[in-house]
Amino acid sequence: MSIKLQVCLEGIDSFFVGGRTARVNGLPIEHRSMVLNGAPREVNPNGVHTYGQMYVQRFKQAAPKYQTPLMLWHGGGMTGATWESTPDGRKGWLWKFLQEGFDVYVCDAVERGRSSFAMHPQIYKEPPVFRTREEGWTTFRLGLNYSDIPSERHVFAGQLFPVDRFDEFAKQWVPRWPNHESLILSAYEDLTERIGKSIIVAHSQGAGFAAAIAQRVPHAVTAVVAVEPGGMPKEAPASQLPPHLIVWGDHIDEAGEHWIRYRNQANDYLAKAGHRIPVDVLDLPRVGVNGNSHFPMMDTNSDEVFGLVMKWLEEKL
Amino acid sequence: MSIKLQVCLEGIDSFFVGGRTARVNGLPIEHRSMVLNGAPREVNPNGVHTYGQMYVQRFKQAAPKYQTPLMLWHGGGMTGATWESTPDGRKGWLWKFLQEGFDVYVCDAVERGRSSFAMHPQIYKEPPVFRTREEGWTTFRLGLNYSDIPSERHVFAGQLFPVDRFDEFAKQWVPRWPNHESLILSAYEDLTERIGKSIIVAHSQGAGFAAAIAQRVPHAVTAVVAVEPGGMPKEAPASQLPPHLIVWGDHIDEAGEHWIRYRNQANDYLAKAGHRIPVDVLDLPRVGVNGNSHFPMMDTNSDEVFGLVMKWLEEKL
Repeated sequence: MSIKLQVCLEGIDSFFVGGRTARVNGLPIEHRSMVLNGAPREVNPNGVHTYGQMYVQRFKQAAPKYQTPLMLWHGGGMTGATWESTPDGRKGWLWKFLQEGFDVYVCDAVERGRSSFAMHPQIYKEPPVFRTREEGWTTFRLGLNYSDIPSERHVFAGQLFPVDRFDEFAKQWVPRWPNHESLILSAYEDLTERIGKSIIVAHSQGAGFAAAIAQRVPHAVTAVVAVEPGGMPKEAPASQLPPHLIVWGDHIDEAGEHWIRYRNQANDYLAKAGHRIPVDVLDLPRVGVNGNSHFPMMDTNSDEVFGLVMKWLEEKL
Repeated sequence: MSIKLQVCLEGIDSFFVGGRTARVNGLPIEHRSMVLNGAPREVNPNGVHTYGQMYVQRFKQAAPKYQTPLMLWHGGGMTGATWESTPDGRKGWLWKFLQEGFDVYVCDAVERGRSSFAMHPQIYKEPPVFRTREEGWTTFRLGLNYSDIPSERHVFAGQLFPVDRFDEFAKQWVPRWPNHESLILSAYEDLTERIGKSIIVAHSQGAGFAAAIAQRVPHAVTAVVAVEPGGMPKEAPASQLPPHLIVWGDHIDEAGEHWIRYRNQANDYLAKAGHRIPVDVLDLPRVGVNGNSHFPMMDTNSDEVFGLVMKWLEEKL
């Protein structure tokens, strides 16, 4: 009833946080055309390179309903596009949170999307890791086996991911670098400190980062919504942390060890934290919501899951 | 007077156009941790990879003033962030065009930003090209020489780029691949056909692409604003094209051959096109607007240059 069909903003803009520099020397100078039908020009890679920065897109309400802004942090091998549209073209959680009246910050984690990355082996030690369709299909718990022929792909019973749009969904994926967590966390910490006080809604790898940032700067975090968290801090928090909501989809036990391990890792961390983290777990199948994939914000019931998350948030604000 | 301080939207979302696939075989399977404190999991790069797609972010007005939507295409080594904020934190042309009442589409060109890229040498033949601060300073016509010490950088007289924010600006830069023009143009053509009828406002390398797309699908383009175009089609257009506005900043003759060549390339193309392209040239210093860099949308007079572009657009709509 109170949901706005239109959202009135007083600004859309972006900024960068974090970032460092490295000097590269001794590489050959080339002469290349860099534009359409361009004459060759000097391309000299030697000099100062910027890397490790994080891109943040800001949507500022003309009349925010909530004082506390909300940040959206995507998962591994993804970008802020995670939150914008579902693969079948419905509005994503970015728009839903704007309709609810939050100021929203959407991040592209360091070295993903508009945040850029550095050359290797001169600055980064390694090349990036790319995700195949095969890996995406099984890792995201759509089914047990991928095939190039869509009708021959195994699909979990009751699957709510729009599987007929999987090949389109694959266009969202970007490469990633293993073992760069400290670089990424450093930028997230800068951002959270800068905003001062905010809600973090995060997915998968991003949810692990959100839990870590809640530990590092608890004064700047109002609540953490960890959707299908991958990765968690090793150590129990040293002080009282803001409330956490953990959201799990379906088919975790059928999809193999990978997801059981991530769920165990989250459970172990929360058990270790004890009373220091007021935690609620929204295990969707346990509350009768069946069929969600690793991407509840893209599944056909994304609005329903959003409603459950929003209900929890309202209780905490 | 008529400028709106707030913008009411009925949607913000995104989609992808273009894209193809390639199968990779024979690479080693690794076991890596891919999340914070994760246990090693299988990382298998062999299989089907998606590449060549283009990310498009869409801002849809609740009550658009103009029927014709407007697309923003960034330049080489940049992303859609070009249009969002100036390096000194003022609102960019995205917001200005929204205030004017356009539906706006912001693109990340193929393999830049949220559009991803492909592995090399398996799919792309070459590694990307990275821009140094040294190259950015001179190529963007801020001055003749870069120094790591900001106060020792040569700055062109009357420079309007916010040079004290140059190091921050460098965080916007992303790598690029030479000789991928056909892949990029293919996605821009898909998008322009899909939207049907639109205005293209494009910068630098993107402006060369805009001129090429106006040739390929003239029925789908209402007008082209080419800000500091780099690159142009080789052939004269075979049919009547929509009106073009070419915008040039300052210090072109002082900044060396590079920019004189790009300007000559644009002039040659327009001369060759003759009456087939109704063209206006906004050479800013010639109309008494001095000191613009290669990025008039980021310079301290970005609102003034926007006003001149908007005036031209209103005459054409």
